[in-house]
Amino acid sequence: MQVEVGADDPRLGDYVRLRESSLRRSLESERGLFIAEGEKVIRRAVEAGHRPRSFLLAPRWLAGLEDVLARWPDVDVYVVDEAVAEQVTGFHVHRGALASLHRADLPPVDDLLGLDRLVVLEDVVDHTNVGAILRSAAGLGWDGALLSPRSADPLYRRAVKVSMGAVFALPWTRFPSWRDAPALLTGAGFTTVALTLADDSEDLDVVAERLRGPGKVAVLLGTEGAGLSDHWAQTASVRVRIPMRAGIDSLNVAAAAAVACYALAPRVTR
Amino acid sequence: MQVEVGADDPRLGDYVRLRESSLRRSLESERGLFIAEGEKVIRRAVEAGHRPRSFLLAPRWLAGLEDVLARWPDVDVYVVDEAVAEQVTGFHVHRGALASLHRADLPPVDDLLGLDRLVVLEDVVDHTNVGAILRSAAGLGWDGALLSPRSADPLYRRAVKVSMGAVFALPWTRFPSWRDAPALLTGAGFTTVALTLADDSEDLDVVAERLRGPGKVAVLLGTEGAGLSDHWAQTASVRVRIPMRAGIDSLNVAAAAAVACYALAPRVTR
Repeated sequence: MQVEVGADDPRLGDYVRLRESSLRRSLESERGLFIAEGEKVIRRAVEAGHRPRSFLLAPRWLAGLEDVLARWPDVDVYVVDEAVAEQVTGFHVHRGALASLHRADLPPVDDLLGLDRLVVLEDVVDHTNVGAILRSAAGLGWDGALLSPRSADPLYRRAVKVSMGAVFALPWTRFPSWRDAPALLTGAGFTTVALTLADDSEDLDVVAERLRGPGKVAVLLGTEGAGLSDHWAQTASVRVRIPMRAGIDSLNVAAAAAVACYALAPRVTR
Repeated sequence: MQVEVGADDPRLGDYVRLRESSLRRSLESERGLFIAEGEKVIRRAVEAGHRPRSFLLAPRWLAGLEDVLARWPDVDVYVVDEAVAEQVTGFHVHRGALASLHRADLPPVDDLLGLDRLVVLEDVVDHTNVGAILRSAAGLGWDGALLSPRSADPLYRRAVKVSMGAVFALPWTRFPSWRDAPALLTGAGFTTVALTLADDSEDLDVVAERLRGPGKVAVLLGTEGAGLSDHWAQTASVRVRIPMRAGIDSLNVAAAAAVACYALAPRVTR
Protein backbone atom coordinates (compact mmCIF):
# COMPACT_ATOMS: atom_id res chain seq x y z
CA MET A 1 0.00 0.00 0.00
CA GLN A 2 1.70 3.18 -1.20
CA VAL A 3 1.71 5.98 1.33
CA GLU A 4 2.80 9.58 0.85
CA VAL A 5 5.13 10.83 3.54
CA GLY A 6 7.41 13.75 4.32
CA ALA A 7 10.88 13.42 5.82
CA ASP A 8 9.60 14.11 9.33
CA ASP A 9 6.70 11.66 9.20
CA PRO A 10 6.78 9.47 12.32
CA ARG A 11 5.95 6.41 10.20
CA LEU A 12 9.52 6.61 8.86
CA GLY A 13 10.79 6.02 12.41
CA ASP A 14 12.20 2.57 11.53
CA TYR A 15 14.63 4.18 9.07
CA VAL A 16 16.10 7.10 11.00
CA ARG A 17 19.81 7.77 11.24
CA LEU A 18 20.96 4.41 9.88
CA ARG A 19 24.63 5.25 10.39
CA GLU A 20 24.39 5.84 14.15
CA SER A 21 25.08 2.37 15.38
CA SER A 22 24.37 2.82 19.08
CA LEU A 23 21.04 4.51 18.38
CA ARG A 24 20.18 1.84 15.84
CA ARG A 25 21.06 -1.04 18.11
CA SER A 26 18.67 0.10 20.82
CA LEU A 27 15.95 1.13 18.36
CA GLU A 28 16.06 -2.16 16.46
CA SER A 29 16.08 -4.31 19.56
CA GLU A 30 13.21 -2.31 21.15
CA ARG A 31 11.05 -2.58 18.06
CA GLY A 32 12.20 -6.07 17.06
CA LEU A 33 13.13 -5.06 13.53
CA PHE A 34 16.02 -5.11 11.13
CA ILE A 35 16.77 -3.25 7.91
CA ALA A 36 17.49 -4.78 4.51
CA GLU A 37 19.02 -2.66 1.74
CA GLY A 38 18.90 -3.16 -2.00
CA GLU A 39 16.46 -5.09 -4.16
CA LYS A 40 18.33 -8.40 -4.10
CA VAL A 41 18.81 -8.46 -0.33
CA ILE A 42 15.21 -7.38 0.37
CA ARG A 43 13.99 -10.15 -1.89
CA ARG A 44 16.12 -12.73 -0.10
CA ALA A 45 14.92 -11.58 3.32
CA VAL A 46 11.28 -11.93 2.32
CA GLU A 47 11.85 -15.25 0.58
CA ALA A 48 13.53 -16.56 3.73
CA GLY A 49 10.25 -15.88 5.56
CA HIS A 50 10.98 -12.55 7.23
CA ARG A 51 7.77 -10.53 7.48
CA PRO A 52 8.11 -6.91 6.31
CA ARG A 53 6.96 -4.00 8.48
CA SER A 54 7.29 -1.45 5.67
CA PHE A 55 9.27 -0.51 2.59
CA LEU A 56 11.04 2.77 1.77
CA LEU A 57 11.67 3.06 -1.96
CA ALA A 58 12.79 5.55 -4.54
CA PRO A 59 10.17 5.58 -7.33
CA ARG A 60 12.41 3.76 -9.80
CA TRP A 61 12.52 0.68 -7.53
CA LEU A 62 8.76 0.16 -7.44
CA ALA A 63 8.64 -1.84 -10.66
CA GLY A 64 11.52 -4.15 -9.74
CA LEU A 65 9.96 -5.10 -6.41
CA GLU A 66 6.35 -5.20 -7.67
CA ASP A 67 5.90 -8.94 -7.06
CA VAL A 68 7.30 -8.69 -3.53
CA LEU A 69 5.05 -5.75 -2.66
CA ALA A 70 2.04 -7.54 -4.13
CA ARG A 71 2.51 -10.39 -1.64
CA TRP A 72 2.11 -7.92 1.22
CA PRO A 73 -0.77 -5.65 0.17
CA ASP A 74 -1.34 -4.33 3.71
CA VAL A 75 2.25 -3.32 4.33
CA ASP A 76 3.06 0.37 3.91
CA VAL A 77 5.28 1.33 0.98
CA TYR A 78 6.81 4.77 1.44
CA VAL A 79 7.81 6.13 -1.94
CA VAL A 80 10.22 9.02 -1.50
CA ASP A 81 12.81 10.77 -3.61
CA GLU A 82 16.46 10.29 -2.80
CA ALA A 83 16.78 13.64 -1.02
CA VAL A 84 14.06 12.65 1.47
CA ALA A 85 15.60 9.21 1.92
CA GLU A 86 18.93 10.86 2.67
CA GLN A 87 17.34 13.30 5.11
CA VAL A 88 15.72 10.45 7.04
CA THR A 89 18.50 7.89 7.00
CA GLY A 90 21.42 10.30 7.24
CA PHE A 91 23.25 9.04 4.19
CA HIS A 92 22.92 8.58 0.47
CA VAL A 93 21.03 5.33 -0.08
CA HIS A 94 22.93 4.02 -3.09
CA ARG A 95 20.60 1.21 -3.89
CA GLY A 96 17.44 3.27 -3.43
CA ALA A 97 15.47 0.52 -1.68
CA LEU A 98 15.10 -0.22 2.02
CA ALA A 99 12.82 -2.53 3.93
CA SER A 100 12.13 -2.82 7.64
CA LEU A 101 11.39 -6.41 8.65
CA HIS A 102 10.32 -8.22 11.81
CA ARG A 103 12.99 -10.18 13.63
CA ALA A 104 11.98 -13.79 14.08
CA ASP A 105 12.95 -15.78 17.17
CA LEU A 106 16.38 -17.36 16.82
CA PRO A 107 16.47 -21.16 16.59
CA PRO A 108 17.55 -23.08 19.71
CA VAL A 109 21.25 -23.96 19.94
CA ASP A 110 20.34 -27.65 19.80
CA ASP A 111 19.06 -27.23 16.24
CA LEU A 112 22.46 -25.98 15.17
CA LEU A 113 24.29 -28.69 17.11
CA GLY A 114 22.49 -31.24 14.93
CA LEU A 115 24.35 -29.98 11.84
CA ASP A 116 27.80 -31.12 10.64
CA ARG A 117 29.92 -28.08 9.77
CA LEU A 118 29.65 -25.01 11.99
CA VAL A 119 31.45 -21.68 12.07
CA VAL A 120 31.64 -20.40 15.64
CA LEU A 121 32.35 -16.76 16.46
CA GLU A 122 33.78 -15.63 19.77
CA ASP A 123 33.11 -11.92 20.22
CA VAL A 124 33.61 -10.92 16.60
CA VAL A 125 32.32 -7.39 17.10
CA ASP A 126 32.59 -5.82 13.67
CA HIS A 127 29.42 -6.05 11.57
CA THR A 128 31.37 -6.19 8.32
CA ASN A 129 33.35 -9.17 9.56
CA VAL A 130 30.27 -11.03 10.78
CA GLY A 131 28.51 -10.48 7.45
CA ALA A 132 31.58 -11.49 5.44
CA ILE A 133 32.15 -14.64 7.52
CA LEU A 134 28.55 -15.79 7.16
CA ARG A 135 28.69 -15.18 3.42
CA SER A 136 31.87 -17.24 3.06
CA ALA A 137 30.54 -20.02 5.29
CA ALA A 138 27.34 -20.29 3.26
CA GLY A 139 29.17 -20.15 -0.06
CA LEU A 140 31.75 -22.74 0.92
CA GLY A 141 29.12 -25.26 1.96
CA TRP A 142 29.09 -24.92 5.74
CA ASP A 143 25.82 -25.70 7.51
CA GLY A 144 25.43 -22.99 10.11
CA ALA A 145 26.96 -20.46 12.49
CA LEU A 146 26.96 -20.06 16.26
CA LEU A 147 27.79 -16.74 17.89
CA SER A 148 28.98 -15.87 21.37
CA PRO A 149 26.65 -13.50 23.22
CA ARG A 150 28.88 -10.48 22.57
CA SER A 151 29.38 -11.03 18.85
CA ALA A 152 27.94 -8.43 16.49
CA ASP A 153 24.39 -8.77 15.21
CA PRO A 154 24.14 -10.59 11.84
CA LEU A 155 20.89 -8.71 11.18
CA TYR A 156 22.45 -5.28 11.57
CA ARG A 157 22.12 -3.45 8.22
CA ARG A 158 25.81 -3.48 7.41
CA ALA A 159 26.19 -7.19 8.22
CA VAL A 160 23.14 -8.07 6.13
CA LYS A 161 24.49 -6.04 3.22
CA VAL A 162 28.02 -7.43 3.32
CA SER A 163 26.63 -10.97 3.60
CA MET A 164 24.59 -10.38 0.41
CA GLY A 165 21.69 -11.91 2.30
CA ALA A 166 23.58 -15.05 3.40
CA VAL A 167 22.44 -14.23 6.95
CA PHE A 168 18.98 -15.34 5.77
CA ALA A 169 20.15 -18.51 4.01
CA LEU A 170 22.53 -19.85 6.64
CA PRO A 171 21.01 -21.08 9.93
CA TRP A 172 22.55 -19.28 12.90
CA THR A 173 21.88 -18.54 16.53
CA ARG A 174 23.60 -17.33 19.70
CA PHE A 175 25.01 -19.31 22.60
CA PRO A 176 23.29 -18.31 25.83
CA SER A 177 26.66 -18.42 27.61
CA TRP A 178 30.20 -17.69 26.46
CA ARG A 179 31.72 -19.99 29.07
CA ASP A 180 29.68 -23.10 28.29
CA ALA A 181 29.96 -22.87 24.50
CA PRO A 182 33.04 -25.09 23.98
CA ALA A 183 31.57 -27.87 26.16
CA LEU A 184 28.26 -27.76 24.29
CA LEU A 185 30.11 -28.30 21.02
CA THR A 186 32.28 -31.15 22.19
CA GLY A 187 29.32 -32.69 24.05
CA ALA A 188 27.45 -32.74 20.73
CA GLY A 189 30.27 -34.66 19.07
CA PHE A 190 32.11 -31.85 17.29
CA THR A 191 35.81 -31.77 16.65
CA THR A 192 36.44 -28.14 17.58
CA VAL A 193 39.19 -26.43 15.60
CA ALA A 194 40.58 -23.26 17.19
CA LEU A 195 42.17 -20.83 14.76
CA THR A 196 45.07 -19.27 16.63
CA LEU A 197 48.65 -18.08 16.28
CA ALA A 198 49.76 -20.06 19.37
CA ASP A 199 53.09 -21.85 19.24
CA ASP A 200 51.55 -25.25 19.95
CA SER A 201 49.17 -25.01 16.99
CA GLU A 202 49.29 -27.37 14.01
CA ASP A 203 49.51 -26.29 10.39
CA LEU A 204 46.08 -25.95 8.79
CA ASP A 205 47.25 -27.98 5.77
CA VAL A 206 47.95 -30.96 8.00
CA VAL A 207 44.76 -30.73 10.02
CA ALA A 208 42.69 -30.28 6.86
CA GLU A 209 43.93 -33.62 5.54
CA ARG A 210 42.54 -35.32 8.66
CA LEU A 211 39.24 -33.47 8.89
CA ARG A 212 38.12 -33.17 5.27
CA GLY A 213 36.05 -36.31 5.41
CA PRO A 214 32.48 -36.51 6.72
CA GLY A 215 31.99 -35.75 10.39
CA LYS A 216 31.13 -32.93 12.75
CA VAL A 217 33.62 -30.05 12.62
CA ALA A 218 33.30 -26.63 14.25
CA VAL A 219 35.85 -23.92 13.48
CA LEU A 220 36.32 -21.36 16.26
CA LEU A 221 37.19 -17.78 15.29
CA GLY A 222 38.26 -15.19 17.84
CA THR A 223 37.69 -11.50 18.31
CA GLU A 224 39.40 -8.93 16.10
CA GLY A 225 42.86 -8.08 17.36
CA ALA A 226 43.22 -10.35 20.38
CA GLY A 227 41.95 -13.56 18.76
CA LEU A 228 40.44 -16.47 20.72
CA SER A 229 40.32 -16.45 24.51
CA ASP A 230 42.48 -18.99 26.31
CA HIS A 231 39.31 -20.68 27.51
CA TRP A 232 38.06 -21.36 24.00
CA ALA A 233 41.48 -22.09 22.50
CA GLN A 234 42.69 -24.43 25.22
CA THR A 235 39.49 -26.48 25.44
CA ALA A 236 39.36 -27.00 21.66
CA SER A 237 40.05 -30.44 20.18
CA VAL A 238 42.81 -29.01 18.00
CA ARG A 239 44.57 -25.66 17.57
CA VAL A 240 45.53 -24.72 14.03
CA ARG A 241 47.36 -21.85 12.41
CA ILE A 242 47.28 -20.65 8.84
CA PRO A 243 50.87 -20.65 7.56
CA MET A 244 51.93 -16.98 7.55
CA ARG A 245 54.91 -15.00 6.40
CA ALA A 246 57.15 -13.95 9.28
CA GLY A 247 56.70 -10.37 10.40
CA ILE A 248 53.23 -9.87 8.95
CA ASP A 249 50.21 -9.46 11.19
CA SER A 250 47.63 -12.15 11.31
CA LEU A 251 45.01 -12.19 8.58
CA ASN A 252 41.82 -10.27 9.06
CA VAL A 253 39.32 -12.61 10.76
CA ALA A 254 37.07 -12.68 7.69
CA ALA A 255 39.98 -13.72 5.47
CA ALA A 256 41.04 -16.35 8.01
CA ALA A 257 37.46 -17.65 8.12
CA ALA A 258 37.35 -17.97 4.33
CA VAL A 259 40.64 -19.89 4.32
CA ALA A 260 39.56 -22.21 7.15
CA CYS A 261 36.11 -22.85 5.65
CA TYR A 262 37.73 -23.71 2.34
CA ALA A 263 40.41 -25.95 3.83
CA LEU A 264 38.08 -27.78 6.23
CA ALA A 265 35.00 -28.06 4.00
CA PRO A 266 34.03 -31.69 3.44
CA ARG A 267 35.24 -32.88 0.05
CA VAL A 268 33.05 -35.30 -1.89
CA THR A 269 35.98 -36.60 -3.88
CA ARG A 270 39.59 -36.92 -2.56
CA MET B 1 57.77 20.71 15.06
CA GLN B 2 54.52 21.30 16.93
CA VAL B 3 52.30 23.95 15.42
CA GLU B 4 49.13 25.45 16.85
CA VAL B 5 46.27 25.56 14.39
CA GLY B 6 42.53 26.18 14.28
CA ALA B 7 40.07 24.08 12.30
CA ASP B 8 40.08 26.54 9.38
CA ASP B 9 43.87 26.81 9.12
CA PRO B 10 44.89 26.27 5.49
CA ARG B 11 47.83 24.15 6.66
CA LEU B 12 45.28 21.44 7.51
CA GLY B 13 44.33 21.27 3.82
CA ASP B 14 45.76 17.77 3.40
CA TYR B 15 43.22 16.42 5.90
CA VAL B 16 39.93 17.97 4.81
CA ARG B 17 36.76 15.96 4.31
CA LEU B 18 38.37 12.52 4.40
CA ARG B 19 35.09 10.75 3.70
CA GLU B 20 34.40 12.48 0.40
CA SER B 21 36.09 10.08 -1.93
CA SER B 22 35.82 12.00 -5.19
CA LEU B 23 37.18 15.17 -3.57
CA ARG B 24 39.94 13.18 -1.89
CA ARG B 25 40.96 11.38 -5.05
CA SER B 26 41.58 14.60 -6.95
CA LEU B 27 43.17 16.36 -3.96
CA GLU B 28 45.56 13.50 -3.21
CA SER B 29 46.61 13.04 -6.80
CA GLU B 30 47.13 16.79 -7.31
CA ARG B 31 49.28 17.12 -4.21
CA GLY B 32 50.93 13.71 -4.49
CA LEU B 33 50.01 12.65 -0.97
CA PHE B 34 48.25 9.92 0.91
CA ILE B 35 46.85 9.65 4.42
CA ALA B 36 47.79 7.08 7.06
CA GLU B 37 45.59 6.60 10.12
CA GLY B 38 46.49 5.17 13.52
CA GLU B 39 49.85 4.88 15.26
CA LYS B 40 50.72 1.43 13.93
CA VAL B 41 49.95 2.23 10.30
CA ILE B 42 51.73 5.61 10.43
CA ARG B 43 54.78 3.88 11.87
CA ARG B 44 54.75 1.28 9.10
CA ALA B 45 54.42 3.93 6.39
CA VAL B 46 57.42 5.85 7.69
CA GLU B 47 59.47 2.70 8.24
CA ALA B 48 58.76 1.68 4.65
CA GLY B 49 60.44 4.92 3.54
CA HIS B 50 57.44 7.17 2.91
CA ARG B 51 58.35 10.77 3.72
CA PRO B 52 55.80 12.59 5.90
CA ARG B 53 54.38 15.98 4.90
CA SER B 54 52.77 16.58 8.30
CA PHE B 55 51.08 14.90 11.25
CA LEU B 56 47.68 15.63 12.80
CA LEU B 57 47.48 14.24 16.32
CA ALA B 58 45.30 14.34 19.37
CA PRO B 59 47.52 15.28 22.36
CA ARG B 60 47.45 11.78 23.83
CA TRP B 61 49.17 10.33 20.74
CA LEU B 62 52.23 12.57 20.96
CA ALA B 63 54.10 10.32 23.38
CA GLY B 64 53.47 7.12 21.43
CA LEU B 65 54.83 8.59 18.20
CA GLU B 66 57.66 10.58 19.83
CA ASP B 67 60.45 8.58 18.16
CA VAL B 68 58.82 8.89 14.73
CA LEU B 69 58.35 12.65 15.11
CA ALA B 70 61.93 13.06 16.32
CA ARG B 71 63.20 11.60 13.04
CA TRP B 72 61.46 14.41 11.16
CA PRO B 73 62.14 17.55 13.21
CA ASP B 74 61.21 19.90 10.37
CA VAL B 75 57.84 18.33 9.63
CA ASP B 76 54.81 20.11 11.08
CA VAL B 77 52.91 18.33 13.83
CA TYR B 78 49.43 19.74 14.27
CA VAL B 79 48.18 18.91 17.75
CA VAL B 80 44.43 19.34 17.91
CA ASP B 81 41.64 18.09 20.12
CA GLU B 82 39.21 15.54 18.74
CA ALA B 83 36.50 18.12 18.06
CA VAL B 84 38.82 20.08 15.77
CA ALA B 85 39.99 16.88 14.09
CA GLU B 86 36.36 15.96 13.45
CA GLN B 87 35.57 19.42 12.11
CA VAL B 88 38.43 19.22 9.61
CA THR B 89 38.16 15.61 8.50
CA GLY B 90 34.37 15.32 8.66
CA PHE B 91 34.27 12.27 10.91
CA HIS B 92 35.28 11.04 14.32
CA VAL B 93 38.93 9.99 14.07
CA HIS B 94 38.82 6.90 16.26
CA ARG B 95 42.51 6.38 16.45
CA GLY B 96 43.36 10.03 17.03
CA ALA B 97 46.42 10.05 14.79
CA LEU B 98 46.73 10.96 11.12
CA ALA B 99 49.72 11.56 8.90
CA SER B 100 49.96 12.99 5.39
CA LEU B 101 52.80 11.42 3.41
CA HIS B 102 54.40 11.92 0.03
CA ARG B 103 53.57 9.37 -2.63
CA ALA B 104 56.69 7.78 -4.05
CA ASP B 105 56.95 6.74 -7.70
CA LEU B 106 55.59 3.26 -8.31
CA PRO B 107 58.13 0.59 -9.28
CA PRO B 108 58.26 -0.45 -12.96
CA VAL B 109 56.14 -3.48 -13.90
CA ASP B 110 59.33 -5.36 -14.80
CA ASP B 111 60.42 -5.31 -11.16
CA LEU B 112 57.25 -7.13 -10.20
CA LEU B 113 57.52 -9.58 -13.08
CA GLY B 114 60.80 -10.74 -11.58
CA LEU B 115 59.00 -12.10 -8.52
CA ASP B 116 57.43 -15.57 -8.19
CA ARG B 117 53.95 -15.27 -6.71
CA LEU B 118 51.79 -12.34 -7.80
CA VAL B 119 48.21 -11.32 -7.08
CA VAL B 120 46.75 -9.49 -10.07
CA LEU B 121 43.66 -7.30 -9.80
CA GLU B 122 41.46 -6.49 -12.76
CA ASP B 123 39.35 -3.42 -11.96
CA VAL B 124 38.78 -4.22 -8.29
CA VAL B 125 37.26 -0.83 -7.52
CA ASP B 126 36.42 -1.02 -3.82
CA HIS B 127 39.14 0.32 -1.52
CA THR B 128 38.23 -2.10 1.26
CA ASN B 129 38.65 -5.05 -1.09
CA VAL B 130 42.00 -3.81 -2.43
CA GLY B 131 43.31 -3.29 1.12
CA ALA B 132 42.03 -6.67 2.31
CA ILE B 133 43.49 -8.50 -0.70
CA LEU B 134 46.93 -6.93 -0.27
CA ARG B 135 46.88 -7.79 3.44
CA SER B 136 46.03 -11.42 2.74
CA ALA B 137 48.58 -11.69 -0.06
CA ALA B 138 51.34 -10.32 2.18
CA GLY B 139 50.33 -12.51 5.13
CA LEU B 140 50.11 -15.68 3.06
CA GLY B 141 53.58 -15.24 1.65
CA TRP B 142 52.90 -13.84 -1.81
CA ASP B 143 55.57 -11.60 -3.31
CA GLY B 144 53.69 -8.71 -4.86
CA ALA B 145 50.57 -7.33 -6.52
CA LEU B 146 49.84 -5.90 -9.95
CA LEU B 147 46.77 -3.77 -10.57
CA SER B 148 44.89 -2.90 -13.73
CA PRO B 149 44.74 0.84 -14.47
CA ARG B 150 41.15 1.13 -13.20
CA SER B 151 41.62 -0.73 -9.92
CA ALA B 152 41.19 1.26 -6.70
CA ASP B 153 44.15 3.05 -5.16
CA PRO B 154 46.00 0.97 -2.50
CA LEU B 155 47.15 4.23 -0.89
CA TYR B 156 43.64 5.58 -0.39
CA ARG B 157 43.07 5.98 3.36
CA ARG B 158 40.53 3.20 3.66
CA ALA B 159 42.66 0.72 1.70
CA VAL B 160 45.72 1.56 3.78
CA LYS B 161 43.73 1.09 6.99
CA VAL B 162 42.11 -2.21 6.02
CA SER B 163 45.46 -3.53 4.83
CA MET B 164 46.97 -2.74 8.27
CA GLY B 165 49.87 -1.21 6.38
CA ALA B 166 50.47 -4.23 4.15
CA VAL B 167 50.32 -1.82 1.19
CA PHE B 168 53.73 -0.59 2.41
CA ALA B 169 55.24 -4.03 2.93
CA LEU B 170 54.09 -5.74 -0.27
CA PRO B 171 55.62 -4.50 -3.54
CA TRP B 172 52.91 -3.42 -5.98
CA THR B 173 52.44 -1.36 -9.10
CA ARG B 174 49.99 -0.74 -11.94
CA PHE B 175 49.93 -2.12 -15.45
CA PRO B 176 50.09 0.72 -17.98
CA SER B 177 47.51 -1.09 -20.11
CA TRP B 178 44.60 -3.38 -19.25
CA ARG B 179 44.73 -5.12 -22.63
CA ASP B 180 48.42 -6.04 -22.57
CA ALA B 181 48.53 -7.25 -18.97
CA PRO B 182 47.89 -10.99 -19.56
CA ALA B 183 50.55 -11.17 -22.29
CA LEU B 184 53.10 -9.42 -20.07
CA LEU B 185 52.54 -12.05 -17.38
CA THR B 186 52.77 -15.08 -19.65
CA GLY B 187 55.70 -13.52 -21.49
CA ALA B 188 57.53 -13.30 -18.16
CA GLY B 189 56.98 -16.99 -17.53
CA PHE B 190 53.99 -16.93 -15.21
CA THR B 191 51.33 -19.59 -15.05
CA THR B 192 48.29 -17.32 -14.89
CA VAL B 193 45.39 -18.64 -12.84
CA ALA B 194 42.03 -16.98 -13.54
CA LEU B 195 39.52 -17.20 -10.70
CA THR B 196 36.13 -17.56 -12.35
CA LEU B 197 32.79 -19.31 -12.10
CA ALA B 198 32.94 -20.41 -15.75
CA ASP B 199 31.77 -23.91 -16.63
CA ASP B 200 35.11 -24.90 -18.14
CA SER B 201 37.03 -24.05 -14.96
CA GLU B 202 38.92 -26.61 -12.89
CA ASP B 203 38.47 -27.19 -9.18
CA LEU B 204 40.93 -25.11 -7.14
CA ASP B 205 41.84 -28.20 -5.07
CA VAL B 206 43.06 -29.97 -8.18
CA VAL B 207 44.97 -27.02 -9.61
CA ALA B 208 46.56 -26.30 -6.23
CA GLU B 209 48.09 -29.78 -6.15
CA ARG B 210 49.84 -29.00 -9.46
CA LEU B 211 50.97 -25.45 -8.68
CA ARG B 212 52.04 -25.63 -5.05
CA GLY B 213 55.68 -26.26 -5.89
CA PRO B 214 58.20 -23.56 -6.74
CA GLY B 215 57.57 -21.57 -9.91
CA LYS B 216 55.98 -18.39 -11.14
CA VAL B 217 52.24 -18.20 -10.44
CA ALA B 218 49.95 -15.20 -10.89
CA VAL B 219 46.37 -15.37 -9.64
CA LEU B 220 43.93 -13.11 -11.55
CA LEU B 221 41.01 -11.63 -9.64
CA GLY B 222 38.15 -9.85 -11.37
CA THR B 223 36.00 -6.85 -10.61
CA GLU B 224 33.30 -6.97 -7.94
CA GLY B 225 30.07 -8.36 -9.29
CA ALA B 226 30.96 -9.20 -12.89
CA GLY B 227 34.28 -10.96 -12.21
CA LEU B 228 37.08 -11.28 -14.76
CA SER B 229 36.68 -10.01 -18.31
CA ASP B 230 36.61 -12.62 -21.06
CA HIS B 231 39.90 -11.22 -22.33
CA TRP B 232 41.71 -11.92 -19.06
CA ALA B 233 39.91 -15.18 -18.29
CA GLN B 234 40.30 -16.73 -21.73
CA THR B 235 43.96 -15.84 -22.18
CA ALA B 236 44.89 -17.27 -18.75
CA SER B 237 46.92 -20.49 -18.51
CA VAL B 238 44.22 -22.09 -16.36
CA ARG B 239 40.73 -21.18 -15.15
CA VAL B 240 39.84 -22.30 -11.63
CA ARG B 241 36.76 -22.13 -9.45
CA ILE B 242 36.46 -22.38 -5.71
CA PRO B 243 34.01 -25.20 -4.95
CA MET B 244 30.76 -23.47 -3.94
CA ARG B 245 27.39 -24.52 -2.61
CA ALA B 246 24.70 -24.43 -5.28
CA GLY B 247 22.43 -21.40 -5.16
CA ILE B 248 24.80 -19.17 -3.22
CA ASP B 249 26.42 -16.16 -4.82
CA SER B 250 30.10 -16.17 -5.45
CA LEU B 251 32.38 -15.27 -2.57
CA ASN B 252 33.34 -11.68 -2.02
CA VAL B 253 36.51 -11.02 -4.03
CA ALA B 254 38.59 -10.48 -0.87
CA ALA B 255 37.46 -13.84 0.53
CA ALA B 256 38.15 -15.53 -2.80
CA ALA B 257 41.60 -13.94 -2.85
CA ALA B 258 42.39 -15.25 0.64
CA VAL B 259 41.31 -18.76 -0.36
CA ALA B 260 43.30 -18.70 -3.61
CA CYS B 261 46.42 -17.23 -1.97
CA TYR B 262 46.27 -19.94 0.69
CA ALA B 263 45.65 -22.80 -1.74
CA LEU B 264 48.28 -21.70 -4.27
CA ALA B 265 50.97 -20.49 -1.87
CA PRO B 266 54.20 -22.41 -2.35
CA ARG B 267 54.57 -25.08 0.34
CA VAL B 268 58.03 -25.80 1.69
CA THR B 269 57.03 -29.26 2.84
CA ARG B 270 54.48 -31.52 1.07
